[in-house]
Amino acid sequence: MKEPFDKSYYLQKADENFPTLYREEISIPNEVKELYPGDSFVLDLGNHYVGYLSFVLGFTNRYPDAPTRLSVRFCERPYEIDADFSAYTVGLCASWLQEEIVTVDYLGEYKMPRRYAARYIKITVLAAPKRITLSDFVFSAVTSADSRQLESVSIDDEELLAIDRVSVNTLKNCMQRVFEDGPKRDRRLWIGDLRLEALANYYTYRQTDLVRRCLYLFAAAECDKDGVMPGYIYEYPFFYSGCWFLRDYSLLFAVTLCEYYLYTGDEQTFLEIYPVAKGQTNAMLGELDENGILVPKNPDNVFIDHIGSLKKTTSLNGIYLYALKALIETLSLLNHEDAEVYRSRYEAARASALRSLYNQEKCNFENAYDEGQLSVHSVAWMILGGALEGEEAWELLRSAMQHEAYLKPVSPYMIHYLIEAMEMLGREEEAMSCLREFWGAMVKEGADTFYEIFTPEDPQAHSVERLTTSMCHAWSSTPSYFIRKRIVGDRRGTSIQMIEK
Amino acid sequence: MKEPFDKSYYLQKADENFPTLYREEISIPNEVKELYPGDSFVLDLGNHYVGYLSFVLGFTNRYPDAPTRLSVRFCERPYEIDADFSAYTVGLCASWLQEEIVTVDYLGEYKMPRRYAARYIKITVLAAPKRITLSDFVFSAVTSADSRQLESVSIDDEELLAIDRVSVNTLKNCMQRVFEDGPKRDRRLWIGDLRLEALANYYTYRQTDLVRRCLYLFAAAECDKDGVMPGYIYEYPFFYSGCWFLRDYSLLFAVTLCEYYLYTGDEQTFLEIYPVAKGQTNAMLGELDENGILVPKNPDNVFIDHIGSLKKTTSLNGIYLYALKALIETLSLLNHEDAEVYRSRYEAARASALRSLYNQEKCNFENAYDEGQLSVHSVAWMILGGALEGEEAWELLRSAMQHEAYLKPVSPYMIHYLIEAMEMLGREEEAMSCLREFWGAMVKEGADTFYEIFTPEDPQAHSVERLTTSMCHAWSSTPSYFIRKRIVGDRRGTSIQMIEK
Repeated sequence: MKEPFDKSYYLQKADENFPTLYREEISIPNEVKELYPGDSFVLDLGNHYVGYLSFVLGFTNRYPDAPTRLSVRFCERPYEIDADFSAYTVGLCASWLQEEIVTVDYLGEYKMPRRYAARYIKITVLAAPKRITLSDFVFSAVTSADSRQLESVSIDDEELLAIDRVSVNTLKNCMQRVFEDGPKRDRRLWIGDLRLEALANYYTYRQTDLVRRCLYLFAAAECDKDGVMPGYIYEYPFFYSGCWFLRDYSLLFAVTLCEYYLYTGDEQTFLEIYPVAKGQTNAMLGELDENGILVPKNPDNVFIDHIGSLKKTTSLNGIYLYALKALIETLSLLNHEDAEVYRSRYEAARASALRSLYNQEKCNFENAYDEGQLSVHSVAWMILGGALEGEEAWELLRSAMQHEAYLKPVSPYMIHYLIEAMEMLGREEEAMSCLREFWGAMVKEGADTFYEIFTPEDPQAHSVERLTTSMCHAWSSTPSYFIRKRIVGDRRGTSIQMIEK
Repeated sequence: MKEPFDKSYYLQKADENFPTLYREEISIPNEVKELYPGDSFVLDLGNHYVGYLSFVLGFTNRYPDAPTRLSVRFCERPYEIDADFSAYTVGLCASWLQEEIVTVDYLGEYKMPRRYAARYIKITVLAAPKRITLSDFVFSAVTSADSRQLESVSIDDEELLAIDRVSVNTLKNCMQRVFEDGPKRDRRLWIGDLRLEALANYYTYRQTDLVRRCLYLFAAAECDKDGVMPGYIYEYPFFYSGCWFLRDYSLLFAVTLCEYYLYTGDEQTFLEIYPVAKGQTNAMLGELDENGILVPKNPDNVFIDHIGSLKKTTSLNGIYLYALKALIETLSLLNHEDAEVYRSRYEAARASALRSLYNQEKCNFENAYDEGQLSVHSVAWMILGGALEGEEAWELLRSAMQHEAYLKPVSPYMIHYLIEAMEMLGREEEAMSCLREFWGAMVKEGADTFYEIFTPEDPQAHSVERLTTSMCHAWSSTPSYFIRKRIVGDRRGTSIQMIEK
């Protein structure tokens, strides 16, 4: 199969793999008392959930002769409860702030129509007739994660158990119609998040149909003129391709597809989507410079990490190698003729990287492409791409992590890849230390789910910007992958029948 | 039939008479343009309607990556459009202010769930991603008035035609599941409003099933310990009796039932509900004092008009006579034995009124019961009750209307009864002048529907309190009754078959 299918075929397959959505009714005990305008109270769901709130409007004495107007604020973390939302004027759209003004006309059950991500719910009575009551609060939590599939882990390590619990909860709450980015803010499907969620999913809920659906959705996306797929898509109320064509994400799409095959053995799906993945790696050929280095025409079309000043060429070339490696491994297993094509491209790209990006003199990745900037990112991705191996690689990574001159990863997304690089070098203990240091600090901070951004050195940092930060974020859900892989063993090579039992 | 039926029987009959609700889709043309936070625009429906708004969220260039948060304000009259709702802290509950904050998650049609009463709709973009559009505004107007039943009137009188048009629109917008008080504020069913709406209805939409339903609903109400029914009931989401037991309203219930028979000839319904009406007049016997004057134990249990300082005994006794008259007329037609009971009660009550309430010396209703207070209300109601007749009655009424010492009617409700009293005295021209003066001034002020309160001398008076005033109000809808009765003739005595053709 050389050519991709029609977009409509991929969308049809995405529809066929629409997941079952499971509901769990969380009843929230509350003291039923007469409420007056200005009264306010906070409900605690006991954990972070994604779903819909309902409650019952009643009265104690006199039938209410007017509607009841409430402010209902949904909070992922306690700092949102009393934050001044009116002060928020920066960054992402203020419409993400989870506060509604609702007017309840009638006695009885009232169901709020929108979905929220929350542990705490603050209700304020704005206007109401005398002696109303609010009771029978129910939060109808929704997820496409089937909790019956989740194996319990038995290890004698409280910290790792706690990290795994929060990690699994994060993944569960991001698993909806697709693997969402963050259920509070930005329900889009992004490739970078998808790849990490898919990994965590193979070791936890094993909903391989949801991964399949997401792969088909991206296969249906409209590529840019260079043939690069968008980094995200919308799938509701209708399918719509994104308009940010991230080179690193498009390469990770190929990785995600390969891993889908490696974890499920589902050859048919792989072969149907493979032409799209092939298109992504082929598109990179057009952006290789005279030195064989991948240099996007527009540097904004690379993500890597949430650091504005980060130079990304070395990292991107590491990701290119990483994607080629995944394709070689997968296509070789399938005895596919393209394996050799990728092998020769890989060898050439690796040689180019060592020639033009690796600084032989300084034994690091200080190079002109990145204007001499040093970063842990460059080192980690070159290790993941197989450009640097063994003790030499570890020494460089360890010193990069310790040395002030190196930019350090800030997003859980990039920290995942740092840990993955450590594991690739066989440094499992160091990898787990790094994992404990970062995700363990979030658990200590009281996390029910893992955050989009986090600074262990300043865990309480609350900025106004943080009001729109997603505190349950897809790309932060991979600790379970690392922890459970150590317990249940590497699941690569297990067949789809074994996983989808 | 001596005893009322079970409450459940009356409720069942009310359900059986649930009206058909008609919908009319009002499309509102608007210029589709890119909108940014802070943008605001006003839609004009071209007339006052009651119903539901929907619109379409779209975009011009970039798919919106965040929800859109809007403020949507529904205004019956222009002064509401830019009024400062936050300044409203007085009187009726602020939850009646028709302004919602809505958050629209998805592109496509968005239907607002609540019902509003409005001609103007002001939309302000509070928070939105770049380049959204709002278009395809549709207001789905709802009423139980069947416009096919409405006869056009042909008179060569622009002013009366305009008053009739606005009157009919007022009635139409108050006709919903019941005859509502005001579709913007207070959707309860009140007896005082019901009686006037029923009258207007017999000459316009002739939906006698809706009158029947409302009569059955009151028949099911819980009376106070004295046997007096509440002045209002709620019927959604479940039937609930009111807790204000207005003596004048309970007597007008008997009048409304009698008129229902007189206008429809529906003997069965009359006889089923008559025991309840009988209970209302019987209850008054317990509140007659040693002079035979009806004096409620609690003076708050009488309405008459929206004047806090008004003394109400004379007016209430006029209403008592008025109700007895209606019962005598109706029961006589039916050859019912109770007719004679009421006749003797009427004669006694009339004699008591003339003896203790009419001031023989001054030839007016200055009396100790009302602490010497003079009011047009007392005179009008005593005329309607038949205590005063002919030229003597007209002279007193005319002088009362002109004399400063007399309290004047302020509500359209009481002005209806003033006009009814004039008509009873055969003063049709004066009655129509009064009607033109009051309702005509509202038309000149630009009314699409008639207001709950109005002062012709100060038609632009806008107080903060007015923000919760109902500008489409049931009790203001009777001009069509007066106007059309002159054209089509008195419909009393027409059979139900003739009306419900």
